[in-house]
Amino acid sequence: MVNPIVVGIIGAGRIGRLHADNLRVMPLFKLKSIAEAVVGEELLDWAESRNLGSVFVSGEDILNDPEIEAVFICTPTDTHAYWIEQAARAHKNIFCEKPISLSSAQTSRALQCVEEEGVMLQVGFNRRMDPSFRRLKQLVESGELGSPHIVKITSRDPQPPGEAYVRSSGGMFMDMTIHDFDMARYLMGEEVTEVYTRGANLVDPMFGRCGDVDTAVITLTFASGAICVIDNSRKAVYGYDQRVEVFGSHGSATADNCRPTTVEVSTAASVTRDQPQHFFLERYNQAFSDEIAAFAQAIRLQEPVICSGLDGQQAERIAEAAKESHRSGLPVKLSFCAGEGISAMQAL
Amino acid sequence: MVNPIVVGIIGAGRIGRLHADNLRVMPLFKLKSIAEAVVGEELLDWAESRNLGSVFVSGEDILNDPEIEAVFICTPTDTHAYWIEQAARAHKNIFCEKPISLSSAQTSRALQCVEEEGVMLQVGFNRRMDPSFRRLKQLVESGELGSPHIVKITSRDPQPPGEAYVRSSGGMFMDMTIHDFDMARYLMGEEVTEVYTRGANLVDPMFGRCGDVDTAVITLTFASGAICVIDNSRKAVYGYDQRVEVFGSHGSATADNCRPTTVEVSTAASVTRDQPQHFFLERYNQAFSDEIAAFAQAIRLQEPVICSGLDGQQAERIAEAAKESHRSGLPVKLSFCAGEGISAMQAL
Amino acid sequence: MVNPIVVGIIGAGRIGRLHADNLRVMPLFKLKSIAEAVVGEELLDWAESRNLGSVFVSGEDILNDPEIEAVFICTPTDTHAYWIEQAARAHKNIFCEKPISLSSAQTSRALQCVEEEGVMLQVGFNRRMDPSFRRLKQLVESGELGSPHIVKITSRDPQPPGEAYVRSSGGMFMDMTIHDFDMARYLMGEEVTEVYTRGANLVDPMFGRCGDVDTAVITLTFASGAICVIDNSRKAVYGYDQRVEVFGSHGSATADNCRPTTVEVSTAASVTRDQPQHFFLERYNQAFSDEIAAFAQAIRLQEPVICSGLDGQQAERIAEAAKESHRSGLPVKLSFCAGEGISAMQAL
Amino acid sequence: MVNPIVVGIIGAGRIGRLHADNLRVMPLFKLKSIAEAVVGEELLDWAESRNLGSVFVSGEDILNDPEIEAVFICTPTDTHAYWIEQAARAHKNIFCEKPISLSSAQTSRALQCVEEEGVMLQVGFNRRMDPSFRRLKQLVESGELGSPHIVKITSRDPQPPGEAYVRSSGGMFMDMTIHDFDMARYLMGEEVTEVYTRGANLVDPMFGRCGDVDTAVITLTFASGAICVIDNSRKAVYGYDQRVEVFGSHGSATADNCRPTTVEVSTAASVTRDQPQHFFLERYNQAFSDEIAAFAQAIRLQEPVICSGLDGQQAERIAEAAKESHRSGLPVKLSFCAGEGISAMQAL
Repeated sequence: MVNPIVVGIIGAGRIGRLHADNLRVMPLFKLKSIAEAVVGEELLDWAESRNLGSVFVSGEDILNDPEIEAVFICTPTDTHAYWIEQAARAHKNIFCEKPISLSSAQTSRALQCVEEEGVMLQVGFNRRMDPSFRRLKQLVESGELGSPHIVKITSRDPQPPGEAYVRSSGGMFMDMTIHDFDMARYLMGEEVTEVYTRGANLVDPMFGRCGDVDTAVITLTFASGAICVIDNSRKAVYGYDQRVEVFGSHGSATADNCRPTTVEVSTAASVTRDQPQHFFLERYNQAFSDEIAAFAQAIRLQEPVICSGLDGQQAERIAEAAKESHRSGLPVKLSFCAGEGISAMQAL
Repeated sequence: MVNPIVVGIIGAGRIGRLHADNLRVMPLFKLKSIAEAVVGEELLDWAESRNLGSVFVSGEDILNDPEIEAVFICTPTDTHAYWIEQAARAHKNIFCEKPISLSSAQTSRALQCVEEEGVMLQVGFNRRMDPSFRRLKQLVESGELGSPHIVKITSRDPQPPGEAYVRSSGGMFMDMTIHDFDMARYLMGEEVTEVYTRGANLVDPMFGRCGDVDTAVITLTFASGAICVIDNSRKAVYGYDQRVEVFGSHGSATADNCRPTTVEVSTAASVTRDQPQHFFLERYNQAFSDEIAAFAQAIRLQEPVICSGLDGQQAERIAEAAKESHRSGLPVKLSFCAGEGISAMQAL
Repeated sequence: MVNPIVVGIIGAGRIGRLHADNLRVMPLFKLKSIAEAVVGEELLDWAESRNLGSVFVSGEDILNDPEIEAVFICTPTDTHAYWIEQAARAHKNIFCEKPISLSSAQTSRALQCVEEEGVMLQVGFNRRMDPSFRRLKQLVESGELGSPHIVKITSRDPQPPGEAYVRSSGGMFMDMTIHDFDMARYLMGEEVTEVYTRGANLVDPMFGRCGDVDTAVITLTFASGAICVIDNSRKAVYGYDQRVEVFGSHGSATADNCRPTTVEVSTAASVTRDQPQHFFLERYNQAFSDEIAAFAQAIRLQEPVICSGLDGQQAERIAEAAKESHRSGLPVKLSFCAGEGISAMQAL
Repeated sequence: MVNPIVVGIIGAGRIGRLHADNLRVMPLFKLKSIAEAVVGEELLDWAESRNLGSVFVSGEDILNDPEIEAVFICTPTDTHAYWIEQAARAHKNIFCEKPISLSSAQTSRALQCVEEEGVMLQVGFNRRMDPSFRRLKQLVESGELGSPHIVKITSRDPQPPGEAYVRSSGGMFMDMTIHDFDMARYLMGEEVTEVYTRGANLVDPMFGRCGDVDTAVITLTFASGAICVIDNSRKAVYGYDQRVEVFGSHGSATADNCRPTTVEVSTAASVTRDQPQHFFLERYNQAFSDEIAAFAQAIRLQEPVICSGLDGQQAERIAEAAKESHRSGLPVKLSFCAGEGISAMQAL
């Protein structure tokens, strides 16, 4: 990979800066520009501490810059679809954070545009690149576990977001569980045909006031008859709880939480070990880096991306069905062709 | 406890003999008689190897023996209710294996009879006495975990039973998941209000031919809004998989599988440890012994039993609802008063 | 094994009663008599709670009883050798607690007598029967680990014994480490050629006043060049710490502590699991039972015992050398023929 | 830290490049020049893949460059002392890989020169920065474990080095165990007073031909009476085995191996998890980065380095004593003042 991919980032919030930090140190990329509505002192300090120089431009500047080959869309969710369309029209390859949008019509339109322009689009379901979950995927694909029968995903945040975030999040299923929906499809390699949601408001009445839940168990049925169950909470006091298990006809595999150290302390009072890594920045640190390395490889080798627009769209459809099931109290059927949307897992 | 409780066992199959072995070595009990329809050579050999002497009589002999204070009912399920009634009428205290019956009417009649005669009835949900699950119960009751929000129960058998067994078992929910239904009520200390079942026939087509499932995920909703999810398989090739997790507002607790040794072997090929203990005889060895010790204590101290007839009945009701949900594909509501049926957990 | 082995126990202290409890419930044995110098009320209560009847006789009664085929010697250490000789002369098979004596001359004389009379003698190094350590032994014998290069034994007591015990114990190496010396020989299957001790008095000055240590690291060199290192403490505040590791040319195997439950509790404050099982009665509960089953098998099948008098003697020799090394501060060489004293490990 | 520290690296072998990669991405540093005797194509490719530009100069150029504030010495061991002296005379701060030299006279002279010139010298005992071992250090310093009584260090390489390496390595104690000697001093915070070595040649006769060992157990006695035991092997077939345990009067703490994923796979054949991370580049990846961040902090904040020249010298003295003990078969006493050489552990 001789010549690096010149990149612009649209949106310099937490996730935009995270990608910037990773892009900065990878020889595969050359980070040229960052667009942010208001470039305040705090942002300038951040850029200076990274020796980024005069990196700030407008979003349009990025799209109009012929040197820039790929655009990272890290803006608020409700503008993702807009920037995807703009970037596609400008013939840039696109890395977009999840979800693509909160509206299936918008998502469809954005994907249509990507297809028309023939650019690449990778959606930021970073957990696909987590070393432990990749290993699970390899175990499924290699057949070591036989036919998958049951997939179990535990996904619990260490602390709930604020009310403003909740109100604009699209709800827990679209904001948080969407990662688990993608993980379920990714591991199973087939499509979900039915969704049943049992949600509750047990953590904080605020969620109820926002019309949202904070606790849920969601059952997904797959075309093959296999079953996935996801359990979510907005508040696991002991830290970020991210575990996955695949149970199949030939065996089972579990991926446990990661912890800062391996130290176990035994005293007269107790035997203790570390809590799980605090939150997604720590737990998926490697995955955030690996997903953009995979993006670079897809661009340079003209390979399929590890997580496509269709993958993003399918996870959104499942999230919509989960919401509907929660509303009605009944299982909701989903109809799309089995397998149509599962990106290939690249051997990296 | 000066004078031991004189006991008769009705039914000398696998579970009857297991109880006999435990009764034999506990000073709290004196095993006097065993009733079995046909006493063949193999059974006589077994009795001789235990120095049990001339222990075999008829069921009626046991009930008519004034020295016998307690009866263990270890016959096939379809005769449990009959023997409960007979034993109650004979004023014996009763230990009965689960389920009480496969029919709610029969179960009700048997419990009615127990109540009329004022005898004690303990149902054999032995897992309540498993050391790890008892610790979970204590953690819930002590409030250390806060309000329980999510309970997860994994219960997978190492190998499927034969077709004859399946046909007479009452189906997986009544035969196997019933233990998990009881565990859910026991840990939560409240009643289930809704059941949703997602079952599948993935292990062996035989189950399908019998009108049964071999794989299932069952979601239970509790009166408080808390959610329990159970996953079952009739065939976990790596052994008997019995794990429970309680997640609450103040913390989470997991009970893992037990293994024959703690040895871990690291070679150039792999790092391995033991598979879980093979099946219920090994895993719940201690629990089988402790449940009858608890029964003795309940009798001698006139305390409530650790698992009552009502507990047995409620688990059967949930199993019925699970079957119905599987049939209809819809969640099924359950209506009984919250908390009416949860036996107290005795500090033993 | 049709006819049980009729047994008498000499000494009804803690360990004598432990064996009595195990003998009582094993059909292989018939416990007939127990000898104890003073049979007080507490002891009578114990016997009554076990339905043992009029079991108490004198030691001479046991030796003179022609029905008694085997004798368990559970008296204080300084009388072991005496009773071994008496029992051998009375043509009883002998199970004797460790160590045989605190004097190499006494031990030799006792073993000589056993040999002359042609009776069986098993020494109570119960840890050989611990399921995890047996598994290590099997891994060594099967060759799965290749040639053993390093053996590591951690053996730490939960609390120190009292001063009276320490003064009569023969010192930590003879009282406590002797188990580890036997474990080292057992696992390696060859003899120790050199001992280096580094001891310290860090737990309680009382040990120093008694001329003893409470903390030690002992290095054993084997004939093959393999090295074993043992670390001991009289006080591990978190419980009984019993771990063993065998590292060989083809791999390594570790045996970890056993814990009462598998429960792990995660809260905002910590992630905790159980401390190790409290002490030897809990940890080696199964081993105490299995060692006497092995003794029964050796008697009935005329097989070698799992731990011979020579095994007992060799462990004592190593303990003497360890003491001498501690005294001189120098390594001490041991000269006996490689392999002469290792009992075969029976496949049970 | 506004202005980055301009750095030159002397030696572009494996470890020099590793530091270069870390320096390159840390805003605290500016990597300006690298000196390597022969700059071949492979090295130029490496530099190009990092966008390092024309970075290669001579060692003298680095020392004469007034902009360069700190020098990393990554040359073969036998030139470390030379370059330390040159760099000190040139008034550069120095980061030097371990050991400082293979000769105590050389090491003393180099340290003398560093002291005379008043420059900073940090020795590359990177394991001090391993997250798990730092946690152990904090547990010792906080007093949570009470007085340390026993420290156990397991350090085994996945595969032996080649004969050429062995011949120039200074022997296993100086090349490999030296890390463990430093770890023992670091954790205990006091000096070693006696060393006893039991070494063997069990892995490959080549080591014996080179006058070296490949397997060893080394016992260190500390001034306080505490004992440390290190076990080493040049070949652990299952991977890089790096574990440490500190046992004290109030508790014990263990640091286990790190593994690439948390996945555990259970099949009919076995239950497996990952082998330890392959070797030091993987296991100490974070530590290599953190040690140079600590170096930057020490320079900019004028704080003591986390591992001083004296620390390097003391580890060499212990290695010399270990060699002598192996040669003589006897324990070797060491005389230096307790605590004189332990660098403070910085809160980073």
